This record gives sequence, C-alpha cells and structure tokens, in this order.
Amino acid sequence: MADATRVSGNPGDSLLLTDLYQLTMLHAYLEHGMTGTAVFEFFVRRLPERRGFLVAAGLRQAIEFLEQARFTPEDLDWLAASGRFPKDFIDRLADFRFTGDVHAVPEGTVLFADEPIIRVTAPLPEAQLMETRLINILHFQTLIASKAARMALAAPGKLLIDFGLRRAHGAEAGLMAARASYLAGFAGTATVPAAPRYGVPVYGTMAHSFVQAHDSEELAFEHFARSRPDSVILLIDTYDTEAGAEKVARLAPKLKALGIPVHGVRLDSGDLAAHARKVRAILDAGGLQDSTIFASGGIDEDALLEFGRSDAPINGYGIGTSLTTSSDVPAFDCAYKLQEYAGRPKRKRSEGKATWPGRKQVFRRYNADGVMRGDVLTVEGDRQGGEALIRLAMRGGARVGALPALVQARAHCAAELARLPAHLRRLEAGPPYPVEVAPSLHALADQVDRETG
Amino acid sequence: MADATRVSGNPGDSLLLTDLYQLTMLHAYLEHGMTGTAVFEFFVRRLPERRGFLVAAGLRQAIEFLEQARFTPEDLDWLAASGRFPKDFIDRLADFRFTGDVHAVPEGTVLFADEPIIRVTAPLPEAQLMETRLINILHFQTLIASKAARMALAAPGKLLIDFGLRRAHGAEAGLMAARASYLAGFAGTATVPAAPRYGVPVYGTMAHSFVQAHDSEELAFEHFARSRPDSVILLIDTYDTEAGAEKVARLAPKLKALGIPVHGVRLDSGDLAAHARKVRAILDAGGLQDSTIFASGGIDEDALLEFGRSDAPINGYGIGTSLTTSSDVPAFDCAYKLQEYAGRPKRKRSEGKATWPGRKQVFRRYNADGVMRGDVLTVEGDRQGGEALIRLAMRGGARVGALPALVQARAHCAAELARLPAHLRRLEAGPPYPVEVAPSLHALADQVDRETG
Repeated sequence: MADATRVSGNPGDSLLLTDLYQLTMLHAYLEHGMTGTAVFEFFVRRLPERRGFLVAAGLRQAIEFLEQARFTPEDLDWLAASGRFPKDFIDRLADFRFTGDVHAVPEGTVLFADEPIIRVTAPLPEAQLMETRLINILHFQTLIASKAARMALAAPGKLLIDFGLRRAHGAEAGLMAARASYLAGFAGTATVPAAPRYGVPVYGTMAHSFVQAHDSEELAFEHFARSRPDSVILLIDTYDTEAGAEKVARLAPKLKALGIPVHGVRLDSGDLAAHARKVRAILDAGGLQDSTIFASGGIDEDALLEFGRSDAPINGYGIGTSLTTSSDVPAFDCAYKLQEYAGRPKRKRSEGKATWPGRKQVFRRYNADGVMRGDVLTVEGDRQGGEALIRLAMRGGARVGALPALVQARAHCAAELARLPAHLRRLEAGPPYPVEVAPSLHALADQVDRETG
Repeated sequence: MADATRVSGNPGDSLLLTDLYQLTMLHAYLEHGMTGTAVFEFFVRRLPERRGFLVAAGLRQAIEFLEQARFTPEDLDWLAASGRFPKDFIDRLADFRFTGDVHAVPEGTVLFADEPIIRVTAPLPEAQLMETRLINILHFQTLIASKAARMALAAPGKLLIDFGLRRAHGAEAGLMAARASYLAGFAGTATVPAAPRYGVPVYGTMAHSFVQAHDSEELAFEHFARSRPDSVILLIDTYDTEAGAEKVARLAPKLKALGIPVHGVRLDSGDLAAHARKVRAILDAGGLQDSTIFASGGIDEDALLEFGRSDAPINGYGIGTSLTTSSDVPAFDCAYKLQEYAGRPKRKRSEGKATWPGRKQVFRRYNADGVMRGDVLTVEGDRQGGEALIRLAMRGGARVGALPALVQARAHCAAELARLPAHLRRLEAGPPYPVEVAPSLHALADQVDRETG
C-alpha cells in the first residue's frame, strides 16, 4: 500500500483511532454476549520524583469525544476490506455509540497517585473501546497542566506564555498544550488556533529571521514598530544583546514622536538574568523605565525559581519545549483499569501493577487555614469526612449540565494551587501528600483476592 | 469566550496552526515590500548524549503540508474579527499559497548535527510562515525515527511493534509515531488508522481487562481463541504469569482439536526475561515448542540490549511510552534558520546559537566496506568527494517526481543503519561521527560576519 494520506479530517474524531486489540476484544465480547455493565477508572499509578501533585485536565475533550464517538463509513469500509472481521460485526459497529455514565473530578483539580481522574460505567464493549483515546486525551492534558502548574507556582506575578507549538509532538499536542497550560495558570499562548478553539489569549513578538532579513537591526526594529504600533516588543539578541538594547533606546524617541510606544524587549539567549540587568539599566537610562523585559529560550521551572531568587528584572517568560513536551517527565505511569464487571468488583494483580478494585471516591480534608491536609481513597458510598472530589459528569451518554468554561476551570485550578501544602507550592522536597486507603477499600480488595485466588 | 471546540477538522491542515508572530512578521514583510527570496534550513543543533545519529523522517507530510497550505474562510473570518490585522492584509492571506522550492535528504537517511534535513527557498513571507508547522512535523517524526532506529539496532531479528498510542501526545503524535517507527525498522503498530493512512501493518493481542471481565482466566483464553482463531496470542500475567502459562498448555490440546493453534503468549509485568525462561519451559513441556513469547511493559533500547545479552527467549516486543514520547530525549535542540535573503547569506550570532550561513550541501564518504567514514558540510555548489545527500524535492510549490513509498523509505533506512560505524550500530559510546566543515563554508561565515559586524 502506498504511503499516501488517504484519510482526511482529525484522526482523533474517529473511533478507528484505537489499538487493534480493542477491536478484537470487542468482537469477542459481542460474540460471547459479554455486554454487562463494566466500570473502568483512569488514574496515575505513581507520582514521578519531580511531580508532588497532578492537575487533572482534558475532561471537556474526553466528554466531547464520548458524545461524538462513532465509526465513519470510510472506517467501516476499510475494516471490511481488511478481512479481519466478519460482516455482522462490522454492521454492529455502524450503530456503535457510547451510552454510559461518567464520573470525574473537575478540570483544574489537584490530584495524587491512585486517585481516579475519570470513571466510566457502561456496557463492557463500550467502556473497553473508549480506553485508548480517553487515555490519549486525559494523560496528555493532565501531564501538561501538571507541568504548567509548577511553572506558575515558580513565577508568581510573572506573565507566562506558551511558545511550544513547534516542538510539541504534532498539531493536536500543540493545541492541547496551549489549553492545558492556560488552565494551569499561563496567561496565554503563541499558538493561534488556541484562540478560536478554546478561547486562550494569544501573544506574539518577532523572530530572529525578521532581524536577519533586514540590512540592519535598527531598520528591522523600525519596520516592526511601524507595522505593529500597538505591541512593540523588540527581539534584541540576534547579534549582541546589549548593543540591541542601545539601539532600542536610541530608536524610542523617534518612535515616540510618531506616537508609537516601545512596550518592551525580548531576550532569547545567553545568561538571561545577567543580560536582563544590563538591558534594564540601558533602557532605564534611555527613559524607557516603563518598558518590560520578556525572556525566552530553554526556560523551565528550575530556571524560573532561580530568576525569582536572584530577583532578575524580567517581567515575563516565553516557555516552549520544557512545557509542551513536559521534557523532564514526558509521560506518567497511568492506567485505565477494569474495576467492576456485571456487579462484581475486579482487580489486576500483575507484579508491580496491582490496582484497587471497585468504584471509588476521594474525600479531601482541609486545615482550618484552608490548606489541604490529606485525602482518603475509598469505595463509592462509603461516607468519610471532607469534600468528595468525584462527581457525575455524563449520564446515558450525554453530559450532565454545562461544563465549566475554560476560564472557570482556570480559576478553580488557581484556588486549588493556593491550597496546596507549602512545600508542594514551593516545589520543594518534603513528605508526600497523605492519601489514606480506607478500611472499606482494603476489605474489598481482600474479598476480590479470595474470590479470584 | 467559551471553551467550545468551534473549529473542526484536523488542526494541522490549516495555515492558522502557527505562532502569532509569524502572522505579525508576515504583515510587516508585506507592508515593507520585503518579498525577496529567502532560504531557510531546518537542522538539529546538537546531538544529545544518547543519540549518536539521527534518522530524517516526515518529509512526505512536510511536502503534503506545503502543497495544501492555505487559510480557510473560517480562519480568515476569525482573524478579521480578532481586530489584529487590517482588511487588506487578510484579503492577501486568502490567496496565500506556497510557491517555493524544497531541497531535502530522503526520509530514512542518517544525519548528524548541523546537517540540514530540509531547505526551503521561497519569497520571504512564504518561507517564514511555513516555519512553525514544518518544524512541528519534521522534528517529531525525526525524533521518533531516531529513537525507533536505536531499538531496531538493539534487537536484530526480533518483531518490534509500536504499542504507544495511548501515551503519545495526542492523536497526531500517535499516528506519526506509528509511521516513523515503521520507517525506522519496526514491524508494525497497534494503532489502527496507521494502516489506512500510511500502510503500516497493524498488530494486536488482548488486554488485562479481557481476562478480568471473565470469571476465570481459562474461560477468557478460550473465548478469545474461538473469536480470533487465526491469531491466538494469550496475555498470561493478569494474576500469575507461570500459572497463566500452565493454563495455556492445558488448553492447547482442546483448541487444537477445534483446529485452533495457539500462536503464542504475551508477558507484560515483572522480570520479563526470567518469566520468559520459565514460560518457555512450560510451553515446550506442553508440546507448544512452536509458540512464540511476546513481551511488553516499560521496554526501551537498554532493556532490549540486556535481553539480547542474556539471550532471553522472547520473540518480539510491544513498545509504548519510551518509543512514542522518545522519553529519554523528548525533544531535539533544532532550528529553522534564515540562511540567505535577497541573494545575501545570513547568519545568527546569538550566544550558543550561532549558525552556519548560506545554502548548504552534505557530502558523505564511505570506507571500502561501505561503512560511513565521515561527512563534509559545505556550501551548495562546492564540489567535494562523496555522495551529495540533499536533493531537490519541490519546485515552484509542487513536488518533483513521486515520493518514495513508505516501504521504500523503510528499506533505505535499513540500508543506512547497516552502514553506520560499528559503535553507533551497537549504541555504544565512542568518538562522535566526523562532520567536517569545509573551508568554503568557514570563508562564507567570515564574510557574513564582516558585513554585519
């Protein structure tokens, strides 16, 4: 077969975007009449050393996926032509819809290991087939929101902008990263379609190529300012950062006479804090005390903390690769596991991968000052003190009520981060956040082991 | 604005999938009549410690993007409504097409730092606007092909299957990873749409949930075998790996009587090599000497090398997260840089990010036994001994000749990997592969520095 793009549209919109074994299992389930109610939960198995907490994200896209999930006629034609499945099975796929319930924590909620991000309750074939794409959506957005939250905590009061589309892993990763980082506290993104798609504010300056294409840096600055008089942020490190700042200071009065203010400059290479100090002095001496300094280039939360400690005169940061690939932790150890089938709790006992059975709830307790004190992981219906985090989000295949707008989820996330224990808020080492497993959940696990042992 | 998905279709198909600054620069270029011919090159700046070489990938998708690149009416409506740009600029965008030339190395070619993967020669506004998505496509596929090639070299003769869609960063990442890993030597993928889209063979077994949903493991195995009689690979680690193998051995005669052969088993947890030895003995004792053992779960090229050294009786591997996120190196330090404008070579001199100016060519030399000896990076037109790697791929916005089919690119990649120096083929530390910068390129850099100095 030729390597041509024979299928168009967003690959994520089709149920064919799955692992082959989901289809073979679906076939076997239907052949053997295994259509009882299944309960799956998606959770992170363990927190990496550099992640003291998670921020749940992607629920809206997960729900949109479940509401719209179907096979297209082209998908079914291809499956039929592949010869892998009988015609009666493919005919059943044509009518396949998700009709189940979803419980989940709201987007922007802080979570820890073993705590479900989402629970799917549906006929086994439906709940099974949703696995791959649900993980694909929820894992990635949770990964990025968890990384972005660290940056937001490391740079309070600074303007953080996502610059990472180019090195994100494909188009959808770039867009979802723009959304998840805004949810977790970024001010916006450079990725244009994140505005029409998600309502994320977009920001932009200029590139080195703009400066290089001109015969002189001065001319490049002047051209840019005349074309974009409302947002003059000049990139000054193409040849020599301080020399670039001097040129800005010399150009500013001329622009001012034309009614064009210089809003600021961007640095993108070298020792950013050291350059920022020198540049600040040059700009101030040139009467540009109100201009801002924006920095980019290889920045992560460690760099942000260091800039904060040294009180570097930088007003905002453009952050790319480390954000949109979550480069220190590019994946979580997470799973979407069968916890109950046909009324019977289930548990996987594979070495190092054992899971807690049954439908679960998380209760969170707070200190008097509002700071999170600890969670209890228990079975649904077990009443514990504190706030229940997992809530009904879909019933019978349709969403329950309106989903929060992204700005509301963003405000919820900010409130959550403010309630983290101090060492987690400061990204410092310390005791892991306490997540207690309730006696009722221990008892259920013992019961399941006896039954399948 | 609400967080609704107001725009449908594949985000990667629209020119709006870019950084905002590309549009602001475009506006400034057009306002100031800067439409001269620009030459940009895309290359990896330096190789990470765990990457002795790169495998170029993604050229087909890059060319398809350039051929189809345009703004949709919805994109233009949104841009107009955003108030960021004047109407005459937006009108010009409606007719925007890529009309330039592309030179590139064929997909599957081995490359090193500073060597261009692609060169774009086009009017400055066009070449500039293509930057973000071109990097987004070429960086990711090259990242994954380079990772997959290490795995292919670490496990000669083994069946390697991509299992990584769920933890890939979004839908497109999963699909592109399936393609890039097949290109670099994988046998196939579990990701279904990679077959209709790219012609990649698809593979699949069963999940733990399938076993868990049944009242007994034996019944799960039998149901699966009866539904999928042509490809019975049974997952045996849900509860106890060796006990699972014993069940397979007991079930096999019954299935054989029904005409259903047991092809093999899959292990997914614990010490895979140790389990594989015990399982091999159990299967052999049960008369299943022809069955295969397939392993998955946290495997990377280091694990593959270790399995090879200990001669673990494993026939194939399913590899997920480490492949599709390139988890040890989730991004390359790469750049798409302006090398020439309006006939004048250009160069960026930012600290630690200086680039070689001008249009470049790479010549590769081989030893008598066919092994790569070293490359020369030089200016286009400079004749050096050896094979010229960079070739014309598009002229005037249209591809030149047919692109190789994916299977051809895969064969080219296999031939390339076979010609790597021995220590790179064995993934061992050793001297970096020699890439010499020709005197003519040094001279050009000096000339550019004098002119912009």
